[in-house]
Amino acid sequence: MADVLNEHASVAARREASLERPCVLVACSGGADSLSLAAALAHEAPRAGILAGGVSVDHGLQEGSAHRARAVAAALAGMGLEPVETVHVRIGRSPAGPEASARSARYAVLDHAATRHGADAVFLGHTLEDQAETVLLGLARGSGARSLAGMATRLGLYRRPLLRLSRGIVRAAVPPGLEPWEDPHNVDPAYARARVRHRVLPVLEKELGPGITAALARTGELLRADAEALDVLADQALQAATRPAPGSSPGSAYDIGHLSGLPQAVRWRVLRTAAISAGCPPTDLTAAHAEAVDKLLTAWHGQKGVDLPGAVRASRRRGVLTFGPLPGS
Amino acid sequence: MADVLNEHASVAARREASLERPCVLVACSGGADSLSLAAALAHEAPRAGILAGGVSVDHGLQEGSAHRARAVAAALAGMGLEPVETVHVRIGRSPAGPEASARSARYAVLDHAATRHGADAVFLGHTLEDQAETVLLGLARGSGARSLAGMATRLGLYRRPLLRLSRGIVRAAVPPGLEPWEDPHNVDPAYARARVRHRVLPVLEKELGPGITAALARTGELLRADAEALDVLADQALQAATRPAPGSSPGSAYDIGHLSGLPQAVRWRVLRTAAISAGCPPTDLTAAHAEAVDKLLTAWHGQKGVDLPGAVRASRRRGVLTFGPLPGS
Repeated sequence: MADVLNEHASVAARREASLERPCVLVACSGGADSLSLAAALAHEAPRAGILAGGVSVDHGLQEGSAHRARAVAAALAGMGLEPVETVHVRIGRSPAGPEASARSARYAVLDHAATRHGADAVFLGHTLEDQAETVLLGLARGSGARSLAGMATRLGLYRRPLLRLSRGIVRAAVPPGLEPWEDPHNVDPAYARARVRHRVLPVLEKELGPGITAALARTGELLRADAEALDVLADQALQAATRPAPGSSPGSAYDIGHLSGLPQAVRWRVLRTAAISAGCPPTDLTAAHAEAVDKLLTAWHGQKGVDLPGAVRASRRRGVLTFGPLPGS
Repeated sequence: MADVLNEHASVAARREASLERPCVLVACSGGADSLSLAAALAHEAPRAGILAGGVSVDHGLQEGSAHRARAVAAALAGMGLEPVETVHVRIGRSPAGPEASARSARYAVLDHAATRHGADAVFLGHTLEDQAETVLLGLARGSGARSLAGMATRLGLYRRPLLRLSRGIVRAAVPPGLEPWEDPHNVDPAYARARVRHRVLPVLEKELGPGITAALARTGELLRADAEALDVLADQALQAATRPAPGSSPGSAYDIGHLSGLPQAVRWRVLRTAAISAGCPPTDLTAAHAEAVDKLLTAWHGQKGVDLPGAVRASRRRGVLTFGPLPGS
């Protein structure tokens, strides 16, 4: 927490001349983790010369949620946070499912709240266990480092200062007199995260050892850094390999000599990105597709092109790999 | 299988002038997976112009194992594999535990058998489920992509042509009349792999969906490629950043300007490798150590050096990061 606040304090120092103090917000559902974070922030921020406000988030999913959100806002104000407001999340339908819809709606209202208050950062109360659960949920997707990468400690406006602290420690720090709310979704087995929390992690702890939660969280952190590094390298390689499309053909072309010299993990990412820019829907594109296109480079024996989702064809001609529309599409 | 054999068949074509045919071996415990692989190899190899022999592996862990190994050798010979021999694994003690000892002893005898027979490759019967189990066992270590990386399809002499096939498919291909042996260790809950197979994976399948085994195996494959790419990039960066140690001081030195420009995932690997070459025992070196040394680069405010396992200290002076012996050690 102190580290994260120091960063904002240095913004404060730079702004001193204008007498404008930086503002951060904490997002609070009323759950134990975010109440504990709000209390810590309310305690630390004045010492770091920072204005700290709170946003009470009402997901509107249960009876009485608006009433509870007002009570949470009152608790935040009681801690000394200022400004405090209550926001209401409206969850639309998304093909990615109700959990993904709730998440994107929540970030949208938090983004707006930050803009309204000129906040430099929004603090979120995710803990070590939340991180471990995220990694396990990603395992089920099986699409490598990106899906296993945990939540970021900092990403855009968002800061997660509790991400390396276990839930037990965080919850012990809820100020006396506050009654944390337990989100019923957290124990509803209809939700994958609840099943991971209550049915999967306890089995892993029992069979593989009590360190597994911390190991999963650390894994998420390391794989996030790996994925970021490989994405940067793949972007650079994509730029360097891009060639004008041959003749008047539509689509994009890449130098095969350049691609072939890349490590496989970078090359697959380049091919995936190239396929997406040629019109393949990212969600339909699997590792098997990247692998099939890769064989045009690494196991070339004059084979015909590879048909990809979204009516895109990858083919090889005269030292160049092209992605273009399927003939007749 | 055909892909893997084609590679050896092309070696065969190159050797034609000398009339010497390439030889591959299959390692067989008598279990269903390796019996199935042996039968497939015995069937395919003559069509690819390859000599295929078999090695019956006796781990000597149970009563009667030598007798069973001879029966397995007879079955391999009955399939038409030639040469066939029985090898006995002697398992020493290792600080890494009995499973690691058994594994390294097994590879040592297979290496020797390959040398004796002039074999170009040794085929192993690991399946998709073995791969998924390996990934889950690696999760418990929590040291990132390297520990999550699955087994390699090919590494040195070894080939694992069944790694993308599920155990059910592989076992259905055991030739009639052969009685596969079930290693009692596979169901002994004293072994972590057996617990993963019988207690962890079934829970993951139930709670996260039946695709989890394939997802874990694919993850292992993708993360192996990621780890290899990042290791290559880190080695290159380490070479490029190496500087002469300042003055007459012992140890090694690295240019901070160069290190600071690297993506975090590459930089952490460089720092880890640099610490190991300075004498830190790899098993004692954690991600937290790399992170602490990294702060000398990315959060420099004149702090003192970082003490590492093995009486090594990392410190920063005049644009150079040095790893040397702890003063007084």
